Amino acid sequence: MMKALVYGGPGQRSWESVPLPDVKDPDDAIVRVDAVTICGTDLHILKGDVPEVEQGRILGHEAVGTVLEIGSGVRNLTVGTRVLVSCISACGRCRYCRTGSYGQCRGGGGWILGHLIDGTQAEFVRVPFAETSLYKLPDAVADEDALMLADIVPTSYEVGVLNGRVSPADTVVVVGAGPIGLAAITAARLFSPAHVVAVDPAASRLEAASRFGADVTVRLGDGSPADVIAELSDGLGADVAIEAVGVPESFELCTSLVRPGGRVANIGVHGKPATLHLESLWSNNITITTGLVDTYSTATLLAMVHSGQLATHQFVTHRFGLEEMEEAYDTFGDAAVTGALKVALARS
Amino acid sequence: MMKALVYGGPGQRSWESVPLPDVKDPDDAIVRVDAVTICGTDLHILKGDVPEVEQGRILGHEAVGTVLEIGSGVRNLTVGTRVLVSCISACGRCRYCRTGSYGQCRGGGGWILGHLIDGTQAEFVRVPFAETSLYKLPDAVADEDALMLADIVPTSYEVGVLNGRVSPADTVVVVGAGPIGLAAITAARLFSPAHVVAVDPAASRLEAASRFGADVTVRLGDGSPADVIAELSDGLGADVAIEAVGVPESFELCTSLVRPGGRVANIGVHGKPATLHLESLWSNNITITTGLVDTYSTATLLAMVHSGQLATHQFVTHRFGLEEMEEAYDTFGDAAVTGALKVALARS
Amino acid sequence: MMKALVYGGPGQRSWESVPLPDVKDPDDAIVRVDAVTICGTDLHILKGDVPEVEQGRILGHEAVGTVLEIGSGVRNLTVGTRVLVSCISACGRCRYCRTGSYGQCRGGGGWILGHLIDGTQAEFVRVPFAETSLYKLPDAVADEDALMLADIVPTSYEVGVLNGRVSPADTVVVVGAGPIGLAAITAARLFSPAHVVAVDPAASRLEAASRFGADVTVRLGDGSPADVIAELSDGLGADVAIEAVGVPESFELCTSLVRPGGRVANIGVHGKPATLHLESLWSNNITITTGLVDTYSTATLLAMVHSGQLATHQFVTHRFGLEEMEEAYDTFGDAAVTGALKVALARS
Amino acid sequence: MMKALVYGGPGQRSWESVPLPDVKDPDDAIVRVDAVTICGTDLHILKGDVPEVEQGRILGHEAVGTVLEIGSGVRNLTVGTRVLVSCISACGRCRYCRTGSYGQCRGGGGWILGHLIDGTQAEFVRVPFAETSLYKLPDAVADEDALMLADIVPTSYEVGVLNGRVSPADTVVVVGAGPIGLAAITAARLFSPAHVVAVDPAASRLEAASRFGADVTVRLGDGSPADVIAELSDGLGADVAIEAVGVPESFELCTSLVRPGGRVANIGVHGKPATLHLESLWSNNITITTGLVDTYSTATLLAMVHSGQLATHQFVTHRFGLEEMEEAYDTFGDAAVTGALKVALARS
Repeated sequence: MMKALVYGGPGQRSWESVPLPDVKDPDDAIVRVDAVTICGTDLHILKGDVPEVEQGRILGHEAVGTVLEIGSGVRNLTVGTRVLVSCISACGRCRYCRTGSYGQCRGGGGWILGHLIDGTQAEFVRVPFAETSLYKLPDAVADEDALMLADIVPTSYEVGVLNGRVSPADTVVVVGAGPIGLAAITAARLFSPAHVVAVDPAASRLEAASRFGADVTVRLGDGSPADVIAELSDGLGADVAIEAVGVPESFELCTSLVRPGGRVANIGVHGKPATLHLESLWSNNITITTGLVDTYSTATLLAMVHSGQLATHQFVTHRFGLEEMEEAYDTFGDAAVTGALKVALARS
Repeated sequence: MMKALVYGGPGQRSWESVPLPDVKDPDDAIVRVDAVTICGTDLHILKGDVPEVEQGRILGHEAVGTVLEIGSGVRNLTVGTRVLVSCISACGRCRYCRTGSYGQCRGGGGWILGHLIDGTQAEFVRVPFAETSLYKLPDAVADEDALMLADIVPTSYEVGVLNGRVSPADTVVVVGAGPIGLAAITAARLFSPAHVVAVDPAASRLEAASRFGADVTVRLGDGSPADVIAELSDGLGADVAIEAVGVPESFELCTSLVRPGGRVANIGVHGKPATLHLESLWSNNITITTGLVDTYSTATLLAMVHSGQLATHQFVTHRFGLEEMEEAYDTFGDAAVTGALKVALARS
Repeated sequence: MMKALVYGGPGQRSWESVPLPDVKDPDDAIVRVDAVTICGTDLHILKGDVPEVEQGRILGHEAVGTVLEIGSGVRNLTVGTRVLVSCISACGRCRYCRTGSYGQCRGGGGWILGHLIDGTQAEFVRVPFAETSLYKLPDAVADEDALMLADIVPTSYEVGVLNGRVSPADTVVVVGAGPIGLAAITAARLFSPAHVVAVDPAASRLEAASRFGADVTVRLGDGSPADVIAELSDGLGADVAIEAVGVPESFELCTSLVRPGGRVANIGVHGKPATLHLESLWSNNITITTGLVDTYSTATLLAMVHSGQLATHQFVTHRFGLEEMEEAYDTFGDAAVTGALKVALARS
Repeated sequence: MMKALVYGGPGQRSWESVPLPDVKDPDDAIVRVDAVTICGTDLHILKGDVPEVEQGRILGHEAVGTVLEIGSGVRNLTVGTRVLVSCISACGRCRYCRTGSYGQCRGGGGWILGHLIDGTQAEFVRVPFAETSLYKLPDAVADEDALMLADIVPTSYEVGVLNGRVSPADTVVVVGAGPIGLAAITAARLFSPAHVVAVDPAASRLEAASRFGADVTVRLGDGSPADVIAELSDGLGADVAIEAVGVPESFELCTSLVRPGGRVANIGVHGKPATLHLESLWSNNITITTGLVDTYSTATLLAMVHSGQLATHQFVTHRFGLEEMEEAYDTFGDAAVTGALKVALARS
């Protein structure tokens, strides 16, 4: 038996004893969880917003761990290997996996951990398609640094920065300065934009945005993002607007802030449609992208953490032991009060 | 004096005598109009939908002609040169012109002919920024073939096919089989897609779509585009959807027809906002583009007409003398009855 | 036991009885060979030019067949599935396979069939990494059409046409009109170039080049490729030059034929260094690419064959039964006399 | 009359009185030179290596200055405007200028200043095609910072870093740590590579390389670049090798250092051919690029200097008054002794 965070239906979670996972398929691995975190998506599941998650499911889709057991078809991982467990599993064989679009896997992968199968908020986890879903970690990369590569950093990098084609000298606006927006700010800096403008209603989040790399901040309600960006861009607008909230208003704000020829990269998880003002945008040569993370950039990001280009541990504001899972949820769930960005739970 | 089609306010047009144009700026050219056409946009102007067009304006933004006079700063054009007059004028100096985005010119160009200054539906026309707005024509390219390169073909090619990144083996759906949609169908074929699906409510337009290169047609009302495309694409959806109508319904149809990872390229001129279903699209890795034509592809398209890759004269269904401008407008304006795609008026 | 074409050292080959292949690894498949061809590379092996091929090796790296048996780790193939056996095997897990660069596989794949392990010129063949190295065939695609997708067509498409970025209206020159050059001519046409110029010393090959899509041919010795291309390109040079021979002279010819800003795509297999005239090329903005085929385009090409965009059977000039392997080698090996492009051997 | 540095044939230069330049064409501007520098190419001219430079020519192709007079066709520059004079003049009208390839201008531009027409090492200079060859400078950008954008920085950025497609997490090797190599090291850092390895025989240059952003240095003769890079790249080789010397050995070293799939970007000015080892490179999927600077990136680089992303003044090691031109040449010409990288001469 082991301990795990089990979803018991809307509003219900508990850290309880459950059976140990077993190898089921030849390409499975069983991983001992050494460090794990909690995602905003886990909170959505607990609210009942993700109905395909069944009662009894172990949550969690981000971890760093150690391979304990492998299936007969696993060639390149050995017991004892330290690995990153990615939020996205990849069958490695389907049309989408063949082009690195693992998030859209048609072969049984995609976002499955803590969603369609048991996840990482446990002492042990079964990872299918292990060779294409786990990433070996260099010794020099600490657990906490690696942990941020399971979801938040590749999401902001791929879906925000790469989809938005952030380029040297760009003016980039990030709407929403929660964890994912802060990660987008940091990731945007990898391409040497001239300005990264953070927009948010909360002053505390804008302070964080400055620490994470924004050189200009606009408090919604106080200032006008359009005016600030016009000032920075000779009146043209932003080259790239990154949506990191997930509500219609912030998306529509993004489409209003980009210059002719600009890009809007949506990262936010939306529950409602937005209005697209084609009556003005039709002639503006804009590009809008959406995306679930594919994690094709994991190896790149890991190399940058390793070589010191990317300081990911800065996202971790609160630390717990693995057995303090419930307190960690409380802290993360009440971020407005606790100021939590990401929490890290480590096996003791 | 010369004859020209003068806009007299909403609903008012007349073929009347007006003064000859003069060189005003050192980079101007005066062009004698040898062939001219009428655009759907001209009909919009006549309806009063383009309020910045002043009464007394000569309409028209597409022509083939002969250089009659040049300003002192024009180096590479000489009197007597046969040229294409593009719908887009380019200052050649501003940030947007520097990157080929002439339609977004900040230096006084963009769509100005027949809009902000007098246009081409006349015996003569003044063309500003002549060296970067006129294209020398090879003798072997006939007036009518070249004329289609003034607007409709580059629009469908750039804003539809290139923005949509049509690629070999793609399944492409074109919603709307009017002239611009037909041009998009033809242009898409340049990249060897597996299927080009045309969608329209009118059977006659779908027949035209087949002639212009669609291998599958779906009559809205009769068939389900989604079902047809699912059948062609293993249930995934289209790689590219090209919107060629300009109403919310057709745009929304396009966003519903593309596969995860697909592209929606909007060509249509919209007067109203559309609904963007981010609640399903956020995780679908789609790309949406909009655009006014830039005409950066004009030289490429001209080379293809010249070498026989592109048969543009097929768009011309009705021919007139220049002095029959009013009849030409009547015919083009009543396309549902006359079946007109593009009309061509030639100087006699 | 089964019959197979066995390499016996330089100059030695025989169609002889050998043991049947077995599943060795969980991701293996055993495929019954229904159609097979011979590659120029097989002739190189027989000359002793590929020293890593051991005596006793079964040759051949191209086939169409039927899955007879699968390993325990194979999920998506079943016994009886009709498949293409690609010249490149892909482990699907390594850094290179993750980005579609299967030809550079670091996990035990790459070009291994008929090279490092037994190949396809046999009644049966073991294919490692079966799920990422075999391609399911639609019923509507005939064996012979599919067979050309095992090597020659993806090689010319990826290494020639895509690396050379052939684009609409380009002037493309293909130096060498043997089978791979002819395939490059055909594949280049998929992107609507204005001109495809074939250059070769043999008149018979130039006739073939015309049939396969070249609109201009230059017989080396008779005409000057530089003059012909200057004529087609306003004196600038070719946009793309594709090297399809594999000797220094043809490579150097290619670098001399491209315009400033042009691309040289090398397909040829070279045994000697070439001279790169950097004293003139340094300022010419040219791009030179080399490559072993990766076969990342196989699914795309298969879709084009299926939908009729690509007629691949035209490469097959001579047909044999599988048991006529030795005659097929004689015919293909003496192409100058027999005129063979590709031979196809079918199981009877 | 004014003072200027006049080329008097091989080995001959003098700072002498010459006539003031006049506006000749409607798109000319006369610029007062406020700051100017000397390029390695000027030293080549003085050696007689650039035979098209005539005796009596004023040298220099880099400056910062103030517009004194404009031709009748100049719209967007006014007398008194502070400008960067780029090494490349652009007609703005030809096929190459239309796609930003100004270095290949077919309309009378390209590298003409101090080459085919009188240059910038003078009190005043005539600049043709002024609107597309001069760049307005923000007040906040100092002369010396801007001066480096005339040639060395765009050259290393475009021809080295962008052609080499330097990307996050890459291992980049720069062969040659002279001024242009140092600029390439700095520019490469804009894209967050994991490692920038500098290779040079001179210890002093490698010290400079470390200051400019190299994290690893290899002294040719002492260490093996291949071994060092293998260590950094799991034995694969560099992602990008940038040649910044201009001799066959350094180019050949670059082609030997890149991994399969890697890029070699040649910046060096070569006087002799190099050997291209196609016998090993043919199957290695490498890309080699060459290029004269086009200066399409000037506005981007200027924005980065302005916003603090790029510290260009660090290249200036020695400062002179404009009238000390001869001493400046002596200092720059004897860089091995003086340690000069770039010299700056300012109008007093």
